[in-house]
Amino acid sequence: MSRPGPIEYKDASAEVRAVFDDIKKSRNVPDVNNFWKYLAHDPAGLKRTWESIKQIMAPGALDPLVKEMIYVAVSVTNGCEYCIASHSAAARRAGMTEAMFGELVAIVGMANETNRLANGYRVPVDAAFE
Amino acid sequence: MSRPGPIEYKDASAEVRAVFDDIKKSRNVPDVNNFWKYLAHDPAGLKRTWESIKQIMAPGALDPLVKEMIYVAVSVTNGCEYCIASHSAAARRAGMTEAMFGELVAIVGMANETNRLANGYRVPVDAAFE
Amino acid sequence: MSRPGPIEYKDASAEVRAVFDDIKKSRNVPDVNNFWKYLAHDPAGLKRTWESIKQIMAPGALDPLVKEMIYVAVSVTNGCEYCIASHSAAARRAGMTEAMFGELVAIVGMANETNRLANGYRVPVDAAFE
Amino acid sequence: MSRPGPIEYKDASAEVRAVFDDIKKSRNVPDVNNFWKYLAHDPAGLKRTWESIKQIMAPGALDPLVKEMIYVAVSVTNGCEYCIASHSAAARRAGMTEAMFGELVAIVGMANETNRLANGYRVPVDAAFE
Amino acid sequence: MSRPGPIEYKDASAEVRAVFDDIKKSRNVPDVNNFWKYLAHDPAGLKRTWESIKQIMAPGALDPLVKEMIYVAVSVTNGCEYCIASHSAAARRAGMTEAMFGELVAIVGMANETNRLANGYRVPVDAAFE
Amino acid sequence: MSRPGPIEYKDASAEVRAVFDDIKKSRNVPDVNNFWKYLAHDPAGLKRTWESIKQIMAPGALDPLVKEMIYVAVSVTNGCEYCIASHSAAARRAGMTEAMFGELVAIVGMANETNRLANGYRVPVDAAFE
Repeated sequence: MSRPGPIEYKDASAEVRAVFDDIKKSRNVPDVNNFWKYLAHDPAGLKRTWESIKQIMAPGALDPLVKEMIYVAVSVTNGCEYCIASHSAAARRAGMTEAMFGELVAIVGMANETNRLANGYRVPVDAAFE
Repeated sequence: MSRPGPIEYKDASAEVRAVFDDIKKSRNVPDVNNFWKYLAHDPAGLKRTWESIKQIMAPGALDPLVKEMIYVAVSVTNGCEYCIASHSAAARRAGMTEAMFGELVAIVGMANETNRLANGYRVPVDAAFE
Repeated sequence: MSRPGPIEYKDASAEVRAVFDDIKKSRNVPDVNNFWKYLAHDPAGLKRTWESIKQIMAPGALDPLVKEMIYVAVSVTNGCEYCIASHSAAARRAGMTEAMFGELVAIVGMANETNRLANGYRVPVDAAFE
Repeated sequence: MSRPGPIEYKDASAEVRAVFDDIKKSRNVPDVNNFWKYLAHDPAGLKRTWESIKQIMAPGALDPLVKEMIYVAVSVTNGCEYCIASHSAAARRAGMTEAMFGELVAIVGMANETNRLANGYRVPVDAAFE
Repeated sequence: MSRPGPIEYKDASAEVRAVFDDIKKSRNVPDVNNFWKYLAHDPAGLKRTWESIKQIMAPGALDPLVKEMIYVAVSVTNGCEYCIASHSAAARRAGMTEAMFGELVAIVGMANETNRLANGYRVPVDAAFE
Repeated sequence: MSRPGPIEYKDASAEVRAVFDDIKKSRNVPDVNNFWKYLAHDPAGLKRTWESIKQIMAPGALDPLVKEMIYVAVSVTNGCEYCIASHSAAARRAGMTEAMFGELVAIVGMANETNRLANGYRVPVDAAFE
């Protein structure tokens, strides 16, 4: 295989291990997901991405479950299977029930539909929305 | 202009007026948005779309504010200006503060970023997510 | 303005004029659309694009109206306003009625919706489709 | 597996079975596709989606083959493998030859190309298209 | 107008001004672009985004001109007019000629086309690429 | 299997073989990739696509490595796995190091993020970019 594979903890540099350690501690998990093991090929990107996600997904004006569901909505729209799988799992861990998941996917589907109806008819933005 | 323009209430068929009336009553607004006035060129589609949205966006396992924010997340990802404008306005009416909007847009941006990091490294889905 | 504007016939090189002439003759129009006037900044690309479109959009196993409607379907999905406007106009010239346009946009909307339902539930392809 | 799998007829609720029965009868098939078996986790969404598709895909101003090809065009643009597979199969059943499929994919490719050429040069919409 | 407008320097908080000052100094410009003035509604996001961009777009294994052209390629693919405009301008400042721009847009168009040809035929990845 | 599979050289028409021969000669490879073997179902499209790619990807104002990286950027944005795999391999053959790949993917991710930040805040294009 000529393309990069995952970098496991035992093979990682000190810089990468420091990020892996922080992910494991913050999330209370024994190992990091594949996403981080591949991103480890770019140690600066690994650190920057993790720190950005940690900041963005922390509880704030929106709670963590809502944040994870928004993440799923984007990933489903883009058709990114890895992110659909990982963030659906994260949303379930944060309390998403199957009823909530069903409603989430239904809204994502509907929004993708009406986005195109608006495009197709070239609907001008109402003055009230400006 | 050769392409279809908006259909105003006074020019609408009885079938279209019935939908416009239900939108105005359900949302307690004096007139419908441009989206509906253009979609009125397809009366069956107008009725079907409105009834689907009414069902999907009703309070359920998810509350209306969360639903509107998910709608915004999809619309921002797709770059549909009309839907960004109309559903951001709807989310604000449902209680979205500017702090919540800032977090929403930040998550949408981040998810769009990590979707592509996962694509670029062709990260396989972890067994734990299956 | 620092970015390139349209190149009009009178200012065009012989290479660009030859393509413009062929477009005008093939389509029986007095002038080319803005698309070609901008693409003229890349004469090789102008010629290649025109020849590809002429080949692809010619009557074949599919008739020109169906071809234009497929073009609209893609453009609406991508939210490309220029192409929605120009190919909707071309489809109307090729015989698309407003009823056909309404059905076209409805299918595009529905397909965009069910694409995301399939993504969200990560539905595996049925053996019958392989 | 923590994520939802397909719901088979024998395990389905009466509400879901009623939709499955209507799909099987309408399409004259012995079983429904995976898409419906997953969507069955959201019975209201299952019913709404099936009724919308049945209405939209029925013969109208456009014939069923053209409708299926438009569906394929959207699915190919979005890269939704499930929908590409299922609607290509449906289009073939409705009479799409391989020559027609080749032309369809060629148009979808070309439209995706020129959408970006129009974006890249920021081509303004011609007055004639308004 | 109910939606947020740009935040000008004179109206900005100390936190926002610090980022604006760093942008102006790093880029040697008298004022920041609209992008930053709107993002200023989310001061934490403003700071994080600026620091990420500064890190990512700095000279590294790739030179700044190539980096800007990659940025344009993504923005054209997504149809984000603001980013097409701002990063095309940045690429020109970094030395992009019109011939280079023409080739860039042509590649972006072609890649968008062949991405869909690969989708349409559901081409399996060659073993040699794994 | 009802859908078209790859067409191997030994089963190809003279028209298809001529294109396969030119690809093998131009790239100095013993066989063509799957992409071409599937596209061979549309001989006119095969020839047109190969000739367009040969013209577009030839050394010009941009060198072949930069061209391949732009191709990867588009493919990653669209999530086209086949094209990500094939063009990442091509870029590596053209000299892309892992450090360059890491920066490329990071820019693609960042651009996808800021495209949505610009969408979300509906940032107007600065006069300086017109």
